[in-house]
Amino acid sequence: MAPRPLDYESINENVKKTQYAVRGELYLRASELQKEGKKIIFTNVGNPHALGQKPLTFPRQVIALCQAPFLLDDPNVGLLFPADAIARAKHYLSLTSGGLGAYSDSRGLIGIRKEIAEFIERRDGYPSDPELVFLTDGASKGVMQMLNTIIGSNKDGILVPVPQYPLYSAAITLFGGSLVPYFLEEEANWGLDVNNLRQAIAGARSRGITVKAMVIINPGNPTGQCLSRTNIQELLQFCYQENLALFADEVYQQNIYQDERPFISAKKVLFDMGPPISKELQLISFHTVSKGYWGECGQRGGYFEMTNLSPQTVDEIYKVSSISLSMNVSGQIFLGLMVNPPKPGDISYLKFSMERYEELIISSSNHNDSFLMIDCEVFIFTYVTVINMHCYHCSKAVLESLRRRAQIMTDGFNSCRNVVCNFTEGAMYSFPQIRLPPRAIEAAKKAGKVPDVFYCLKLLEATGISTVPGSGFGQKEGVFHLRTTILPAEEDMPAIMASFKKFNDGFMEQYEDYRGYSRM
Amino acid sequence: MAPRPLDYESINENVKKTQYAVRGELYLRASELQKEGKKIIFTNVGNPHALGQKPLTFPRQVIALCQAPFLLDDPNVGLLFPADAIARAKHYLSLTSGGLGAYSDSRGLIGIRKEIAEFIERRDGYPSDPELVFLTDGASKGVMQMLNTIIGSNKDGILVPVPQYPLYSAAITLFGGSLVPYFLEEEANWGLDVNNLRQAIAGARSRGITVKAMVIINPGNPTGQCLSRTNIQELLQFCYQENLALFADEVYQQNIYQDERPFISAKKVLFDMGPPISKELQLISFHTVSKGYWGECGQRGGYFEMTNLSPQTVDEIYKVSSISLSMNVSGQIFLGLMVNPPKPGDISYLKFSMERYEELIISSSNHNDSFLMIDCEVFIFTYVTVINMHCYHCSKAVLESLRRRAQIMTDGFNSCRNVVCNFTEGAMYSFPQIRLPPRAIEAAKKAGKVPDVFYCLKLLEATGISTVPGSGFGQKEGVFHLRTTILPAEEDMPAIMASFKKFNDGFMEQYEDYRGYSRM
Repeated sequence: MAPRPLDYESINENVKKTQYAVRGELYLRASELQKEGKKIIFTNVGNPHALGQKPLTFPRQVIALCQAPFLLDDPNVGLLFPADAIARAKHYLSLTSGGLGAYSDSRGLIGIRKEIAEFIERRDGYPSDPELVFLTDGASKGVMQMLNTIIGSNKDGILVPVPQYPLYSAAITLFGGSLVPYFLEEEANWGLDVNNLRQAIAGARSRGITVKAMVIINPGNPTGQCLSRTNIQELLQFCYQENLALFADEVYQQNIYQDERPFISAKKVLFDMGPPISKELQLISFHTVSKGYWGECGQRGGYFEMTNLSPQTVDEIYKVSSISLSMNVSGQIFLGLMVNPPKPGDISYLKFSMERYEELIISSSNHNDSFLMIDCEVFIFTYVTVINMHCYHCSKAVLESLRRRAQIMTDGFNSCRNVVCNFTEGAMYSFPQIRLPPRAIEAAKKAGKVPDVFYCLKLLEATGISTVPGSGFGQKEGVFHLRTTILPAEEDMPAIMASFKKFNDGFMEQYEDYRGYSRM
Repeated sequence: MAPRPLDYESINENVKKTQYAVRGELYLRASELQKEGKKIIFTNVGNPHALGQKPLTFPRQVIALCQAPFLLDDPNVGLLFPADAIARAKHYLSLTSGGLGAYSDSRGLIGIRKEIAEFIERRDGYPSDPELVFLTDGASKGVMQMLNTIIGSNKDGILVPVPQYPLYSAAITLFGGSLVPYFLEEEANWGLDVNNLRQAIAGARSRGITVKAMVIINPGNPTGQCLSRTNIQELLQFCYQENLALFADEVYQQNIYQDERPFISAKKVLFDMGPPISKELQLISFHTVSKGYWGECGQRGGYFEMTNLSPQTVDEIYKVSSISLSMNVSGQIFLGLMVNPPKPGDISYLKFSMERYEELIISSSNHNDSFLMIDCEVFIFTYVTVINMHCYHCSKAVLESLRRRAQIMTDGFNSCRNVVCNFTEGAMYSFPQIRLPPRAIEAAKKAGKVPDVFYCLKLLEATGISTVPGSGFGQKEGVFHLRTTILPAEEDMPAIMASFKKFNDGFMEQYEDYRGYSRM
């Protein structure tokens, strides 16, 4: 009998070739184990609310009112909602025509796109045009749409960092393009070496590939590095010389865990460089409500900003957006709230700031960092005496707990046998290198597994820690990693790292054991 | 200078070839006119809330509580929310891990998928497996994903009705497949003739196309017909003989405006037919919260159910879903609410039913249909005396106002010069044929416009009525239509139709004028 059209043999080959490790074999096995009653620590996806992070109250109040606008006419509304949340809900509803139940324009609500453009202007110090800001159901959807726009055949190449977030490899395969890898330098804390870029592009061209765009992920996923201004300048210059568009995945721009390398947007560096490059280089920048101190992954709010695209191309992108009508409207409002959080003087400002601070205050007894204690005092002083005073430390202190978790994790990994790990400068991942002994690699081969998948499966079975093998992100041949988020609660972190160390050191002992018998 | 990678010349040819008329030239011109201050009646998109339909209170209460779960601990919550909304919100939150801010499984929350499967079982009387129900950000996204799964090259053909909803033509072009049109019979109220299908598939095969799937839209968009059971049986048999998968777009299943042809799902008819066809034919059915009496377009909640797909293919579809992580979680909860509305005995049941009734009661003074008046009495009796009694008329009476609007519109069109129109049996559109005089076609050609685009633009400029030209949906050569929704408020409808008639009859007079001068 002939295969049916949706039998495996018949379907789109690109679908079959596509790989997506973040929710691959490890995740599926972890889900099975969880069903069987085993406690699983899911560190495979950057999904903070699933790991206990509480939503910020103010944005959720605003969105609840937008969803239930009849509450605005209820005389009791003030008992459950502060006046500024009520005012903000009215503001956002006034930007829609028909509330959250109506499709918006396919690019998103123009009022929200204006708020985003103003945010970008404040951040970079350069103009941003709301007509060039498009909203999407999460940043991933925007990345996929732009890759689909630029890829016309398997001769169209996209430079992608290795290791990379597998959205890129997956979408490029799905759309039938060619992934052109460039290696990040693990020894230089995952820095970007322009010589690697030149080699990669030369190699691709010799194979008949037209390289059309380059992807950067800054801060890095899974690698956690922050690109320096100089590095960004170099890569912009490279794109300009080589006639490449730049896709800047900047979704972790609010997740920075050190002061030496603050986040700088590719657009800011580009505009600082001035013409001709600032007027010619085509740049697409992506951002989201899923990361930062928001972590509102399930709301699916993302946007991209286009720089130096012709109106004709923008029209084409708009047309394709139209096919799926509009992104979810409540996610659009989350984007508005993210770029316009409560300000000093707003009723909800203090509570909002406290929630961002919360983890710091709760966990301040666990550490001896006197700078942080001073921050807390300033904060409490603000709270008690000058209710509207701007607590200027907030924005820095917000992610202190994640910073400490990143440190605990890096130190923990580096204390393990055959494990080396760079510090997480930004984003929300740790990406230790696991130096697998030859006998472990051999055992993996016998089991029909990629060596790091073999290791991560054993780790999962032994400890319940669900990670993603480095092979899902790409790595140099014979070198192995795993990715874990730094999101588990700070108080759980020492136990998780102890459990990891016990497993790892036992694993290494087993496979470095040459006493003549196998303990497999 | 060489074109840059995102210049129009360089981008994906399939993107450029894609057409999507629902938000095309007419919509863009209407948006411009609106900006200039002209009052526009947007009947181009089935977007009920944008045209004044109010959201149902109960689902919005539930979703507001899910977004603001801290309200559940507030002692005042009972002042703003009824107990059953509170209970339902707790239920849905218990199905998530981390609330609405966490990514769900990429197929959607299993708890919601179970509720949908139970709904399908109740509807069809046959088992439904939640593992084969996937949730998507609106039904369009699901359609696009399944077309991308089945299309591997430009030799893969998809049978699509003409006229069709342009999502299909757009997505097939975007993914590089071949659209194989089959014509619906306007003279037989847009019925489906299997002979047309046979001709279409034979023609495609002679051009080297492998036809892999057939699309039906039932109730029809833009054509508004409901397929009879016999018709569905015939087309299932056809798909089985020809080894085609069937894509059944059933998003308008709750929008039925007559009693002779109730909605019957393709799955029910398939299972009624029994083996071997019921165990072999591959069927994908699509549904959404955007239509029916919900009209919650902006929430982007859709699902598809797969029948007779192998686990291996389902895994591939799951993998591709994973790339964009998860659909928006609040839209998932809307799906749960749609398939589980308040039941007799629930506190909110009566209010919910009244809201579905509202338009009927408000407008009952405008008509003399005694059957409807009896309905109202039964309803009011229920309201006053037996508060928990099931008002069994509700589910039929709900869409009475739309039924009347469909009738006003059909009659209105048929009263116009050179316009003929079938009655809208289902969905939410009217699709009149406009018989353009040769001189109008000539004038359009001179203006560089497709004739029906020319007509619709003139209509827009003259009256503010924003429609979609039939050419956007496909039509037989030399035959012209326009699509309008039947959604404008019932009280506005006579004025809108009068305005249309005035324009149309003037237009016809102008272009049928043979007195030797042109009034263009």
